[in-house]
Amino acid sequence: MSTDLLNRIQSPADLRALDRRDLNQVAEELRAFVLESVSRTGGHLSSNLGTVELTIALHYVFDTPHDRIVWDVGHQTYPHKILTGRRDSMATLRQAGGISGFPKRTESEYDAFGTAHSSTSISAALGMAVASRNAGMDRQHIAVIGDGSMSAGMAFEALNNGGVTSDINLLVILNDNDMSISPPVGALNRYLARLMSGRFYAAAKNVSKAVLAHVPPVLELARRLEEHAKGMVTPATLFEELGFNYVGPIDGHDLESLVPTLQNMRKLTGPRFLHVVTRKGQGYKLAEADPVLYHGPGKFDPAVGIRKPGTPPKQTFTQVFGDWLCDTAAADTRLVGITPAMREGSGMVEFEQRFPNRYFDVGIAEQHAVTFAAGIACEGQKPVVAIYSTFLQRGYDQLVHDVALQNLDVTFALDRAGLVGADGATHAGNYDIAFLRCIPNMVIATPSDEAECRLLLSTCYEHVGPSSVRYPRGAGRGAIPARTLDTVPVGKGIVRRESSSASADRGVVILAFGTMLVPATAAAESLDATVVDMRFVKPLDRELVLELAARHAAIVTIEEGCLMGGAGSAVTEALNAAGVTMPVLQLGLPDQFIDHGDQATLLAGLGLDAKGIEASIRGRFAKVLGTGAKAAAA
Amino acid sequence: MSTDLLNRIQSPADLRALDRRDLNQVAEELRAFVLESVSRTGGHLSSNLGTVELTIALHYVFDTPHDRIVWDVGHQTYPHKILTGRRDSMATLRQAGGISGFPKRTESEYDAFGTAHSSTSISAALGMAVASRNAGMDRQHIAVIGDGSMSAGMAFEALNNGGVTSDINLLVILNDNDMSISPPVGALNRYLARLMSGRFYAAAKNVSKAVLAHVPPVLELARRLEEHAKGMVTPATLFEELGFNYVGPIDGHDLESLVPTLQNMRKLTGPRFLHVVTRKGQGYKLAEADPVLYHGPGKFDPAVGIRKPGTPPKQTFTQVFGDWLCDTAAADTRLVGITPAMREGSGMVEFEQRFPNRYFDVGIAEQHAVTFAAGIACEGQKPVVAIYSTFLQRGYDQLVHDVALQNLDVTFALDRAGLVGADGATHAGNYDIAFLRCIPNMVIATPSDEAECRLLLSTCYEHVGPSSVRYPRGAGRGAIPARTLDTVPVGKGIVRRESSSASADRGVVILAFGTMLVPATAAAESLDATVVDMRFVKPLDRELVLELAARHAAIVTIEEGCLMGGAGSAVTEALNAAGVTMPVLQLGLPDQFIDHGDQATLLAGLGLDAKGIEASIRGRFAKVLGTGAKAAAA
Repeated sequence: MSTDLLNRIQSPADLRALDRRDLNQVAEELRAFVLESVSRTGGHLSSNLGTVELTIALHYVFDTPHDRIVWDVGHQTYPHKILTGRRDSMATLRQAGGISGFPKRTESEYDAFGTAHSSTSISAALGMAVASRNAGMDRQHIAVIGDGSMSAGMAFEALNNGGVTSDINLLVILNDNDMSISPPVGALNRYLARLMSGRFYAAAKNVSKAVLAHVPPVLELARRLEEHAKGMVTPATLFEELGFNYVGPIDGHDLESLVPTLQNMRKLTGPRFLHVVTRKGQGYKLAEADPVLYHGPGKFDPAVGIRKPGTPPKQTFTQVFGDWLCDTAAADTRLVGITPAMREGSGMVEFEQRFPNRYFDVGIAEQHAVTFAAGIACEGQKPVVAIYSTFLQRGYDQLVHDVALQNLDVTFALDRAGLVGADGATHAGNYDIAFLRCIPNMVIATPSDEAECRLLLSTCYEHVGPSSVRYPRGAGRGAIPARTLDTVPVGKGIVRRESSSASADRGVVILAFGTMLVPATAAAESLDATVVDMRFVKPLDRELVLELAARHAAIVTIEEGCLMGGAGSAVTEALNAAGVTMPVLQLGLPDQFIDHGDQATLLAGLGLDAKGIEASIRGRFAKVLGTGAKAAAA
Repeated sequence: MSTDLLNRIQSPADLRALDRRDLNQVAEELRAFVLESVSRTGGHLSSNLGTVELTIALHYVFDTPHDRIVWDVGHQTYPHKILTGRRDSMATLRQAGGISGFPKRTESEYDAFGTAHSSTSISAALGMAVASRNAGMDRQHIAVIGDGSMSAGMAFEALNNGGVTSDINLLVILNDNDMSISPPVGALNRYLARLMSGRFYAAAKNVSKAVLAHVPPVLELARRLEEHAKGMVTPATLFEELGFNYVGPIDGHDLESLVPTLQNMRKLTGPRFLHVVTRKGQGYKLAEADPVLYHGPGKFDPAVGIRKPGTPPKQTFTQVFGDWLCDTAAADTRLVGITPAMREGSGMVEFEQRFPNRYFDVGIAEQHAVTFAAGIACEGQKPVVAIYSTFLQRGYDQLVHDVALQNLDVTFALDRAGLVGADGATHAGNYDIAFLRCIPNMVIATPSDEAECRLLLSTCYEHVGPSSVRYPRGAGRGAIPARTLDTVPVGKGIVRRESSSASADRGVVILAFGTMLVPATAAAESLDATVVDMRFVKPLDRELVLELAARHAAIVTIEEGCLMGGAGSAVTEALNAAGVTMPVLQLGLPDQFIDHGDQATLLAGLGLDAKGIEASIRGRFAKVLGTGAKAAAA
């Protein structure tokens, strides 16, 4: 592949030095580079193929990094990274020590704002624009946001606020590709499709307006005439109703259209809105045909495309959930399944096909998803909200105020709890135990493997009241769930290994919450420790904790979640409440944001593999280990 | 005042038995009753005077409680409570053991959904409508939402989802009174004002449509003709763009207009939207003239109105914040103040007047407020977000993902932390310590009195990074803050009282977080305990904790926040991490939602007054109290 032009671009200044006629060649080389690079490292593909021309046009027209570009979600920033000095680093993408798959302020001065969760870009760019205005700084602030992200309330809140702030430099670019990760839903999307149906007219109209921008007073006159005429000819767009100067839709793969439009819009002031139409996967036929499959692939051969693996990989917790959901829905017509735009990621594809009337993809709208579930529960049906741990942070108030306070029967299936691997700190599911545990009425279950996951999903579903089951990304130890809908008692743990030598004076008991049971059990063999699968953080099995406390010398708690306020603290609170004073070692995630990288490697680095656990326990409790403990390995 | 008709209404069925011509008399009596009742108990007034006719019309037209009415925010439901069997209970409004100031499912079958935080109603009603559809239940579902609540993203998310669900019975009623608690802001409000300017035309148009509703096929034809014509005459409203059948605006105080319109809209199916215009304070001149003053008054004489108190009451924490904000803004031009629609409640009236360019009321939009602040912080300015503890739950993900993860310099001033009195469980600020403490980079300060509040605000503001200062509703012990901008060391506590008799074997140390220092100190006198104002939950003063642990026999922690995951757990985590094993008694709020009532009474009931604290400590630690402790009172 030719990389003649691309290799000369070390920063956007090099891009801006090029002749405008060269940009199409840059686009071709950049697209090929993205495809080649992602096929080697894995990562997001479809969205990045879709933003090649837009990225070039933005850095060509705007004076980055002085001007600020905020990329919503940010998984579409590989072209941006490549053009801003990180071309060679793309080989380390999303790997431990390598560059992030999202914009990151500490990674580059061109990353004006770190993103990953959707729909933050307009708020952030508006904040920057206000700051620049107050400081008398001449600067442009651009939010690039997809149509999927636009369905989140937060984007609406920002538009509502931005539309009345006339003396700022804010440009919102809607990257309309008719697609979030799952296909689009909701009225706004339908509306955007209607806007696009009038596309060429609008484009023609706005090009003339854009050209007129050179002469502000004439533009103003033209604008008013247009406003006047508009009522008679074409309705104002929703975005104009909200106070933005709307231009578009224009073709987001046509540099001849993008560059002059951006050049003209740059000269305007106030809140502006450019509607750009792109195609996910653009330029790579396989991705164009199936942008969902190519949304975030692993490594693959671009010439062949993604192949189905020969041997099926281990079943993931997500698949366990998906199977359980279908089986339970078949057995109970009251079940309703809800996802905020994560049909694939949450394992709900089959459920949608089999139970379309009971499947609700509400769009990227976590707040609504939770209270919508609450409303359903009021009428005696049983909603299951499938949501990533990190995204539940978006619906936190609704969980507290609408679900838990009213003690409504909503089950939360929390995927991606704990470390999430390549997505890194922005997607970390580290905090759910702490932020859920403090809320009255909540049940929190932490399955230790795939079979337990199914058991605890059934248990929480049958429990009448708010409940949650948290499970990690990927697979566990490989336990095969029984295809039953059996349940276990709520709030009861189970002793998995008994120390042969524990007494009130000697011996350690490990209380494991979730999949940390597996390395904890491995460590326990050498330590001759008792091991408990606690199953529930809340209600905590106090009786069991106190009984074990009485016949061991020390307690170890372990969880794949933040130590601060986590399950280990639940144990110490229970001991304190009972007036029991004994040594406790809390193992879990430290009080820091943890970057992307392989999950197993990261956990080992934090001392949360069998070896690390054993070392920690020996380090603290060497003197009180049971007499059955082996000597430490050299 | 005449109450002839009102006295006969024990339930909406009695209302529906009345002749339609009697409804105006009911309205008159109901309005007088609301005014009289609120003037005796205190509570929300303006909003309730504004919904008298709408409430009558809804219960007259719809078959409640079979049909569901969800009242957004719910502080406007006094007329609803009076008509649904709670007329006599109004004397106990918002008092301990009395009825709630909000709808509450456990209080009445007419309260279909508990509300208090804004903008939840459409999501909940949509959930109910979907459940009814799936169950084949013929039922109407109505969300009544104010224009202020409509600015929150959550309402938009629900509209976006509801507008595409054509086979449900959902009626959204926009109660447009041009007012949330503070005056309205944002582009949506401007837009609504434009809609109202075409008011009479629209009303006439829709009455004819409503009448045609008896004959569905004709209506459908009429609708299509209208749709066709509309493009040429009047643009579709934003709500129609989102898929709702829009009717309005109509006069919300005119029963002749409300009743037939609702009767006709009841016969339609699918998502419908009725735009009703009301006036806050309607029918009481003083409240009409100043609806903000009469938003939530205490007791007053209706004939005279609210009087300025003769002797100024004790300065509240809110006022301490307001003064500090103005003084700091005067000293530092980088300060920017942000409120999500709580100018008065957060003490920002003077700040807005003095620093209009640095004051931002973003509307009821907590998500946006937080990320907007993050954007400002990126540009080197210093945002202060003033927000109630309970409402920060709405911006939680933004705090984690946009502020803390990027370590941005945003200061959160958390008012109404802990119990909030008359507003009750929905507004409880009990959880902030737990849900903030688990987030890396966050600083959490807990001032023990007014002077400390100012000191810690200055300290957190000067600290470069995310920080929060939490303080309770109302006044503290009455300490007068110095008008300086002095700071204290971050993460350092201060010993306020030394036990005269503590040793490693005897004596108790009380670690107090926040205003619980005052009753803790009172208790300590009799117990001869050491007392510490910890000042910060995070970073915790571990050094001080360990030093005190070494020279006392037991530790007591106390906080006005949930015990689960709270400051007390931070102390035990620190002890566990250091390998220190000693008795700890954690005092704070139990794991339950706590209803409305007088704050001091509620705290005493939970054992969190001086007497209760002393009793708890004697109960646990009688045997290890210092030798200087007095004997327990009989």
